[in-house]
Amino acid sequence: MKKGLIQIYTGDGKGKTTAAIGQIVRALGHNLKVCYISFFKDPAKWSYGEMGILRKWGVDVYHFATKHPCFYKKIRKELVRQECLCALGFIAEIFERDYDLLVLDEINIALRDGFLKEDEILLLLKKKPKLLEVVLTGRGATPELIKRASLVTEMKKIKHPLDRGTKSRKGIEY
Amino acid sequence: MKKGLIQIYTGDGKGKTTAAIGQIVRALGHNLKVCYISFFKDPAKWSYGEMGILRKWGVDVYHFATKHPCFYKKIRKELVRQECLCALGFIAEIFERDYDLLVLDEINIALRDGFLKEDEILLLLKKKPKLLEVVLTGRGATPELIKRASLVTEMKKIKHPLDRGTKSRKGIEY
Repeated sequence: MKKGLIQIYTGDGKGKTTAAIGQIVRALGHNLKVCYISFFKDPAKWSYGEMGILRKWGVDVYHFATKHPCFYKKIRKELVRQECLCALGFIAEIFERDYDLLVLDEINIALRDGFLKEDEILLLLKKKPKLLEVVLTGRGATPELIKRASLVTEMKKIKHPLDRGTKSRKGIEY
Repeated sequence: MKKGLIQIYTGDGKGKTTAAIGQIVRALGHNLKVCYISFFKDPAKWSYGEMGILRKWGVDVYHFATKHPCFYKKIRKELVRQECLCALGFIAEIFERDYDLLVLDEINIALRDGFLKEDEILLLLKKKPKLLEVVLTGRGATPELIKRASLVTEMKKIKHPLDRGTKSRKGIEY
Protein backbone atom coordinates (compact mmCIF):
# COMPACT_ATOMS: atom_id res chain seq x y z
CA MET A 1 0.00 0.00 0.00
CA LYS A 2 1.13 3.55 -0.71
CA LYS A 3 1.59 6.31 1.84
CA GLY A 4 -1.42 6.56 4.13
CA LEU A 5 -3.24 9.88 4.34
CA ILE A 6 -5.60 11.51 6.78
CA GLN A 7 -9.21 11.75 5.57
CA ILE A 8 -11.94 13.77 7.25
CA TYR A 9 -15.70 13.45 6.73
CA THR A 10 -17.47 16.31 8.46
CA GLY A 11 -20.62 18.45 8.07
CA ASP A 12 -24.25 18.15 9.12
CA GLY A 13 -25.45 15.77 6.38
CA LYS A 14 -25.98 12.01 6.40
CA GLY A 15 -23.10 10.00 5.01
CA LYS A 16 -20.09 10.52 7.27
CA THR A 17 -20.04 7.23 9.17
CA THR A 18 -21.65 5.60 6.14
CA ALA A 19 -18.74 6.72 3.95
CA ALA A 20 -16.23 5.49 6.53
CA ILE A 21 -17.91 2.08 6.45
CA GLY A 22 -17.84 2.12 2.66
CA GLN A 23 -14.15 2.91 2.87
CA ILE A 24 -13.69 -0.12 5.13
CA VAL A 25 -15.41 -2.37 2.57
CA ARG A 26 -13.15 -1.03 -0.15
CA ALA A 27 -10.10 -1.78 1.98
CA LEU A 28 -11.36 -5.28 2.83
CA GLY A 29 -11.89 -5.87 -0.89
CA HIS A 30 -8.14 -5.49 -1.27
CA ASN A 31 -7.34 -7.60 1.80
CA LEU A 32 -6.19 -4.64 3.86
CA LYS A 33 -6.23 -4.85 7.66
CA VAL A 34 -8.77 -2.55 9.26
CA CYS A 35 -9.43 -1.18 12.74
CA TYR A 36 -12.61 0.77 13.60
CA ILE A 37 -12.83 2.83 16.79
CA SER A 38 -15.98 4.77 17.64
CA PHE A 39 -16.80 7.56 20.04
CA PHE A 40 -20.29 8.14 21.45
CA LYS A 41 -21.81 5.06 19.89
CA ASP A 42 -23.55 2.57 22.09
CA PRO A 43 -22.35 -0.93 21.08
CA ALA A 44 -25.64 -2.39 22.30
CA LYS A 45 -27.28 -0.59 19.40
CA TRP A 46 -24.47 -0.41 16.84
CA SER A 47 -22.96 -3.86 17.23
CA TYR A 48 -26.26 -5.32 16.24
CA GLY A 49 -26.24 -4.09 12.65
CA GLU A 50 -23.24 -2.92 10.67
CA MET A 51 -20.70 -3.40 13.43
CA GLY A 52 -21.64 -7.05 13.82
CA ILE A 53 -21.15 -7.60 10.13
CA LEU A 54 -17.82 -5.72 10.03
CA ARG A 55 -16.56 -7.81 12.94
CA LYS A 56 -17.61 -10.94 11.11
CA TRP A 57 -15.55 -9.78 8.14
CA GLY A 58 -12.42 -9.42 10.26
CA VAL A 59 -12.49 -5.75 11.24
CA ASP A 60 -11.32 -5.07 14.80
CA VAL A 61 -14.02 -2.92 16.40
CA TYR A 62 -13.66 -0.87 19.60
CA HIS A 63 -15.99 1.61 21.28
CA PHE A 64 -15.01 4.44 23.62
CA ALA A 65 -17.10 7.00 25.54
CA THR A 66 -20.18 5.15 24.40
CA LYS A 67 -22.68 7.50 26.05
CA HIS A 68 -22.77 11.19 25.20
CA PRO A 69 -23.94 13.43 28.08
CA CYS A 70 -26.33 15.13 25.65
CA PHE A 71 -28.37 11.96 25.45
CA TYR A 72 -27.52 10.39 28.80
CA LYS A 73 -28.04 13.10 31.41
CA LYS A 74 -26.57 11.05 34.25
CA ILE A 75 -23.16 10.64 32.60
CA ARG A 76 -20.54 12.89 34.21
CA LYS A 77 -18.56 15.01 31.77
CA GLU A 78 -15.27 14.36 33.58
CA LEU A 79 -15.78 10.65 33.04
CA VAL A 80 -16.32 11.16 29.32
CA ARG A 81 -13.17 13.28 29.12
CA GLN A 82 -11.28 10.50 30.86
CA GLU A 83 -12.64 7.87 28.47
CA CYS A 84 -11.66 9.99 25.47
CA LEU A 85 -8.11 10.36 26.81
CA CYS A 86 -8.05 6.62 27.33
CA ALA A 87 -9.05 6.23 23.68
CA LEU A 88 -6.12 8.42 22.58
CA GLY A 89 -3.75 6.16 24.50
CA PHE A 90 -5.34 3.13 22.90
CA ILE A 91 -5.05 4.63 19.42
CA ALA A 92 -1.33 5.25 19.99
CA GLU A 93 -1.08 1.52 20.77
CA ILE A 94 -3.03 0.71 17.62
CA PHE A 95 -0.41 2.70 15.66
CA GLU A 96 2.13 0.07 16.72
CA ARG A 97 0.17 -2.73 15.09
CA ASP A 98 0.18 -3.32 11.35
CA TYR A 99 -3.20 -1.94 10.30
CA ASP A 100 -3.67 -0.40 6.86
CA LEU A 101 -6.82 1.59 7.66
CA LEU A 102 -7.97 3.08 10.96
CA VAL A 103 -11.39 4.70 11.27
CA LEU A 104 -11.93 7.09 14.19
CA ASP A 105 -15.68 7.44 13.98
CA GLU A 106 -17.16 10.61 15.53
CA ILE A 107 -13.83 11.66 17.04
CA ASN A 108 -14.55 15.20 15.78
CA ILE A 109 -17.51 15.31 18.16
CA ALA A 110 -15.15 14.69 21.09
CA LEU A 111 -13.23 17.76 19.97
CA ARG A 112 -16.31 19.87 19.20
CA ASP A 113 -17.84 19.15 22.58
CA GLY A 114 -14.69 19.77 24.58
CA PHE A 115 -13.88 16.20 25.62
CA LEU A 116 -10.62 16.31 23.69
CA LYS A 117 -8.38 19.26 22.90
CA GLU A 118 -7.26 20.08 19.40
CA ASP A 119 -3.60 19.82 20.44
CA GLU A 120 -4.15 16.35 21.81
CA ILE A 121 -5.56 15.08 18.52
CA LEU A 122 -2.91 16.86 16.43
CA LEU A 123 -0.17 15.38 18.61
CA LEU A 124 -1.67 11.92 18.18
CA LEU A 125 -1.85 12.33 14.40
CA LYS A 126 1.84 13.29 14.36
CA LYS A 127 2.58 9.78 15.60
CA LYS A 128 0.62 8.15 12.76
CA PRO A 129 2.67 5.47 10.97
CA LYS A 130 3.52 6.53 7.44
CA LEU A 131 1.61 3.74 5.71
CA LEU A 132 -1.55 3.94 7.82
CA GLU A 133 -4.64 5.61 6.32
CA VAL A 134 -6.71 7.32 9.02
CA VAL A 135 -10.34 8.40 8.60
CA LEU A 136 -11.82 10.91 11.06
CA THR A 137 -15.55 11.50 11.06
CA GLY A 138 -18.01 13.76 12.81
CA ARG A 139 -19.38 17.27 12.65
CA GLY A 140 -17.25 20.21 13.59
CA ALA A 141 -13.78 19.40 12.28
CA THR A 142 -11.64 22.44 13.13
CA PRO A 143 -9.59 24.43 10.58
CA GLU A 144 -6.36 23.11 12.12
CA LEU A 145 -7.53 19.53 11.76
CA ILE A 146 -8.59 20.20 8.18
CA LYS A 147 -5.16 21.71 7.51
CA ARG A 148 -3.54 18.50 8.75
CA ALA A 149 -5.68 16.25 6.51
CA SER A 150 -5.14 15.47 2.82
CA LEU A 151 -8.73 14.61 1.96
CA VAL A 152 -11.67 16.48 3.44
CA THR A 153 -15.32 16.20 2.44
CA GLU A 154 -18.08 18.23 4.01
CA MET A 155 -21.33 16.25 4.02
CA LYS A 156 -23.77 19.11 3.63
CA LYS A 157 -27.37 18.46 4.51
CA ILE A 158 -29.72 19.49 1.74
CA LYS A 159 -32.64 17.45 3.09
CA HIS A 160 -33.04 14.90 5.87
CA PRO A 161 -36.21 12.93 6.61
CA LEU A 162 -35.61 13.13 10.37
CA ASP A 163 -36.24 16.88 10.06
CA ARG A 164 -39.75 16.08 8.95
CA GLY A 165 -40.40 13.78 11.87
CA THR A 166 -39.57 10.46 10.18
CA LYS A 167 -38.11 8.16 12.83
CA SER A 168 -34.70 6.49 12.49
CA ARG A 169 -35.07 3.32 10.47
CA LYS A 170 -33.32 0.02 11.13
CA GLY A 171 -30.92 -0.85 8.32
CA ILE A 172 -30.96 2.69 7.00
CA GLU A 173 -30.10 5.21 9.74
CA TYR A 174 -28.57 2.58 12.07
CA MET B 1 -39.10 -2.50 7.10
CA LYS B 2 -40.78 0.89 7.07
CA LYS B 3 -41.62 2.93 4.00
CA GLY B 4 -38.65 3.21 1.67
CA LEU B 5 -37.38 6.65 0.75
CA ILE B 6 -35.27 8.11 -2.02
CA GLN B 7 -31.78 9.18 -0.96
CA ILE B 8 -29.38 11.22 -3.06
CA TYR B 9 -25.63 11.63 -2.57
CA THR B 10 -24.33 14.32 -4.88
CA GLY B 11 -21.57 16.98 -4.99
CA ASP B 12 -17.92 17.07 -6.02
CA GLY B 13 -16.40 15.55 -2.87
CA LYS B 14 -15.26 12.00 -2.12
CA GLY B 15 -17.80 9.87 -0.29
CA LYS B 16 -20.81 9.41 -2.57
CA THR B 17 -20.30 5.84 -3.73
CA THR B 18 -18.50 5.15 -0.47
CA ALA B 19 -21.59 6.22 1.50
CA ALA B 20 -23.82 4.09 -0.73
CA ILE B 21 -21.61 1.09 0.04
CA GLY B 22 -21.75 1.90 3.74
CA GLN B 23 -25.52 2.03 3.42
CA ILE B 24 -25.43 -1.45 1.85
CA VAL B 25 -23.40 -2.81 4.79
CA ARG B 26 -25.92 -1.30 7.22
CA ALA B 27 -28.75 -2.98 5.34
CA LEU B 28 -26.91 -6.33 5.21
CA GLY B 29 -26.36 -6.04 8.96
CA HIS B 30 -30.14 -6.20 9.32
CA ASN B 31 -30.53 -9.00 6.78
CA LEU B 32 -32.11 -6.77 4.17
CA LYS B 33 -31.98 -7.76 0.50
CA VAL B 34 -29.82 -5.46 -1.59
CA CYS B 35 -29.33 -4.74 -5.28
CA TYR B 36 -26.50 -2.53 -6.60
CA ILE B 37 -26.56 -1.16 -10.15
CA SER B 38 -23.77 1.04 -11.43
CA PHE B 39 -23.37 3.37 -14.38
CA PHE B 40 -20.00 4.20 -15.95
CA LYS B 41 -18.03 1.80 -13.81
CA ASP B 42 -15.87 -0.77 -15.49
CA PRO B 43 -16.50 -4.12 -13.76
CA ALA B 44 -13.02 -5.26 -14.72
CA LYS B 45 -11.72 -2.66 -12.30
CA TRP B 46 -14.57 -2.37 -9.78
CA SER B 47 -15.51 -6.02 -9.41
CA TYR B 48 -12.02 -6.69 -8.22
CA GLY B 49 -12.29 -4.78 -4.95
CA GLU B 50 -15.46 -3.73 -3.16
CA MET B 51 -17.85 -5.18 -5.72
CA GLY B 52 -16.32 -8.61 -5.35
CA ILE B 53 -16.76 -8.46 -1.62
CA LEU B 54 -20.35 -7.18 -1.86
CA ARG B 55 -21.20 -10.01 -4.24
CA LYS B 56 -19.67 -12.47 -1.82
CA TRP B 57 -21.96 -11.07 0.87
CA GLY B 58 -25.07 -11.68 -1.19
CA VAL B 59 -25.58 -8.35 -2.93
CA ASP B 60 -26.80 -8.61 -6.52
CA VAL B 61 -24.46 -6.45 -8.59
CA TYR B 62 -25.10 -5.16 -12.15
CA HIS B 63 -23.19 -2.75 -14.36
CA PHE B 64 -24.58 -0.67 -17.22
CA ALA B 65 -22.91 1.73 -19.65
CA THR B 66 -19.59 0.70 -18.22
CA LYS B 67 -17.48 3.02 -20.36
CA HIS B 68 -18.00 6.79 -20.30
CA PRO B 69 -17.15 8.52 -23.61
CA CYS B 70 -15.12 11.05 -21.63
CA PHE B 71 -12.58 8.38 -20.81
CA TYR B 72 -13.13 6.03 -23.77
CA LYS B 73 -13.03 8.19 -26.87
CA LYS B 74 -14.09 5.37 -29.20
CA ILE B 75 -17.41 4.78 -27.43
CA ARG B 76 -20.33 6.20 -29.43
CA LYS B 77 -22.67 8.42 -27.43
CA GLU B 78 -25.79 6.87 -28.99
CA LEU B 79 -24.67 3.51 -27.72
CA VAL B 80 -24.29 4.86 -24.19
CA ARG B 81 -27.75 6.42 -24.38
CA GLN B 82 -29.13 3.06 -25.47
CA GLU B 83 -27.40 1.26 -22.62
CA CYS B 84 -28.76 3.77 -20.10
CA LEU B 85 -32.30 3.26 -21.40
CA CYS B 86 -31.74 -0.46 -21.15
CA ALA B 87 -30.74 0.08 -17.52
CA LEU B 88 -34.00 1.93 -16.84
CA GLY B 89 -35.96 -1.03 -18.21
CA PHE B 90 -33.92 -3.35 -16.06
CA ILE B 91 -34.51 -1.23 -12.95
CA ALA B 92 -38.26 -1.37 -13.58
CA GLU B 93 -37.89 -5.17 -13.56
CA ILE B 94 -35.89 -4.98 -10.33
CA PHE B 95 -38.82 -3.09 -8.80
CA GLU B 96 -40.88 -6.25 -9.24
CA ARG B 97 -38.51 -8.30 -7.08
CA ASP B 98 -38.48 -8.08 -3.32
CA TYR B 99 -35.40 -5.99 -2.64
CA ASP B 100 -35.23 -3.71 0.40
CA LEU B 101 -32.45 -1.45 -0.86
CA LEU B 102 -31.50 -0.51 -4.40
CA VAL B 103 -28.38 1.56 -5.11
CA LEU B 104 -28.19 3.33 -8.47
CA ASP B 105 -24.55 4.33 -8.40
CA GLU B 106 -23.59 7.30 -10.61
CA ILE B 107 -27.01 7.46 -12.25
CA ASN B 108 -26.90 11.25 -11.75
CA ILE B 109 -23.96 11.34 -14.16
CA ALA B 110 -26.15 9.76 -16.85
CA LEU B 111 -28.56 12.65 -16.34
CA ARG B 112 -25.90 15.35 -16.10
CA ASP B 113 -24.19 14.19 -19.28
CA GLY B 114 -27.37 13.85 -21.31
CA PHE B 115 -27.58 10.07 -21.57
CA LEU B 116 -30.84 10.04 -19.64
CA LYS B 117 -33.52 12.70 -19.46
CA GLU B 118 -34.84 14.02 -16.17
CA ASP B 119 -38.39 12.96 -17.06
CA GLU B 120 -37.25 9.42 -17.70
CA ILE B 121 -35.71 9.12 -14.24
CA LEU B 122 -38.66 10.83 -12.52
CA LEU B 123 -41.08 8.50 -14.28
CA LEU B 124 -39.05 5.50 -13.18
CA LEU B 125 -39.00 6.70 -9.58
CA LYS B 126 -42.78 7.03 -9.67
CA LYS B 127 -42.92 3.27 -10.14
CA LYS B 128 -40.75 2.62 -7.06
CA PRO B 129 -42.38 0.07 -4.72
CA LYS B 130 -43.46 1.68 -1.46
CA LEU B 131 -41.14 -0.34 0.76
CA LEU B 132 -38.03 -0.08 -1.39
CA GLU B 133 -35.27 2.35 -0.34
CA VAL B 134 -33.45 3.78 -3.37
CA VAL B 135 -30.06 5.50 -3.25
CA LEU B 136 -28.96 7.64 -6.21
CA THR B 137 -25.39 8.83 -6.37
CA GLY B 138 -23.31 11.05 -8.62
CA ARG B 139 -22.52 14.68 -9.22
CA GLY B 140 -25.09 17.00 -10.69
CA ALA B 141 -28.42 15.91 -9.18
CA THR B 142 -30.99 18.32 -10.61
CA PRO B 143 -33.37 20.43 -8.49
CA GLU B 144 -36.34 18.32 -9.66
CA LEU B 145 -34.60 15.13 -8.60
CA ILE B 146 -33.73 16.68 -5.24
CA LYS B 147 -37.37 17.73 -4.84
CA ARG B 148 -38.43 14.11 -5.35
CA ALA B 149 -35.98 12.75 -2.74
CA SER B 150 -36.43 12.67 1.03
CA LEU B 151 -32.78 12.61 1.98
CA VAL B 152 -30.15 14.58 0.09
CA THR B 153 -26.53 15.13 1.06
CA GLU B 154 -24.10 17.20 -0.94
CA MET B 155 -20.59 15.83 -0.59
CA LYS B 156 -18.65 19.05 -0.84
CA LYS B 157 -14.98 18.85 -1.64
CA ILE B 158 -12.88 20.81 0.83
CA LYS B 159 -9.65 19.02 -0.12
CA HIS B 160 -8.80 16.06 -2.33
CA PRO B 161 -5.33 14.53 -2.70
CA LEU B 162 -5.90 13.83 -6.42
CA ASP B 163 -5.90 17.63 -6.89
CA ARG B 164 -2.31 17.66 -5.72
CA GLY B 165 -1.25 14.93 -8.11
CA THR B 166 -1.58 11.95 -5.76
CA LYS B 167 -2.57 8.94 -7.84
CA SER B 168 -5.69 6.84 -7.10
CA ARG B 169 -4.83 4.29 -4.47
CA LYS B 170 -5.99 0.67 -4.41
CA GLY B 171 -8.27 0.01 -1.43
CA ILE B 172 -8.83 3.72 -0.88
CA GLU B 173 -10.06 5.43 -4.04
CA TYR B 174 -11.08 2.17 -5.76
